[in-house]
Amino acid sequence: MADTIFRKIIAGQIPCHKVYEDEKVLAFLDVNPLSRGHTLVIPKEEAETLDQLSDESAAAIGRVLPRICRAVIAAAQAREYNVLENNGRGAHQLVQHVHFHIIPKPGSDKGLTIGWPAARLDADAEALAEKIRAAMGLEA
Amino acid sequence: MADTIFRKIIAGQIPCHKVYEDEKVLAFLDVNPLSRGHTLVIPKEEAETLDQLSDESAAAIGRVLPRICRAVIAAAQAREYNVLENNGRGAHQLVQHVHFHIIPKPGSDKGLTIGWPAARLDADAEALAEKIRAAMGLEA
Repeated sequence: MADTIFRKIIAGQIPCHKVYEDEKVLAFLDVNPLSRGHTLVIPKEEAETLDQLSDESAAAIGRVLPRICRAVIAAAQAREYNVLENNGRGAHQLVQHVHFHIIPKPGSDKGLTIGWPAARLDADAEALAEKIRAAMGLEA
Repeated sequence: MADTIFRKIIAGQIPCHKVYEDEKVLAFLDVNPLSRGHTLVIPKEEAETLDQLSDESAAAIGRVLPRICRAVIAAAQAREYNVLENNGRGAHQLVQHVHFHIIPKPGSDKGLTIGWPAARLDADAEALAEKIRAAMGLEA
């Protein structure tokens, strides 16, 4: 594991603007916000990407996300927002420790901007779904 | 609550390419994928946005996300991916039922594209963090 800045924040070696903490989860303001209230929610467990995180830490993050979202949008006075978690440098992950962004969207020119070049599912779709189910150990 | 397409999928009135299901969670292929393997993970509970979702449903989604992510990237043969959950039309939410996208990023021109116009935290940051903590009912 890389000794990331988030490890140092968890260890208290680097300060942060904390908004929430429990046994498994820490949340604090992003120092390079996309909008006012931009918050990061991270597991204390060391995991570089979400697929490497334990079920327990992922459940703990999931459980507290609605509550943190409510607080962020109340404080930032934004009604709309995005929750984003990036995995891999090519997917815009800059710190190698799982982190969920909560990014208020106070206007079309503020917050996260997204490109959405959607296609259509092709004839291969059910075969692909089968592959995913098989990878999960589920029946075809 | 709007009678969304996801409600109808949960009710079995509209078919889907299912990849996972448990008591609280359903996952299936997005019919308009941004990349091969683009999967949606939704709560069976009716909630338009994440801030309105129960802690229990949010925890159930969180718990299964790592497992579904592992299966999706294995099946799609992508190492990098984004997890995205949008809240509000202006934040790119098109169906008014909470849904987490898992979007493989097989190349820079494929999958989700993100604009990241980051700023810097201003002097007001700790006051903002206090506001969020207060909104969560935590001590200042």
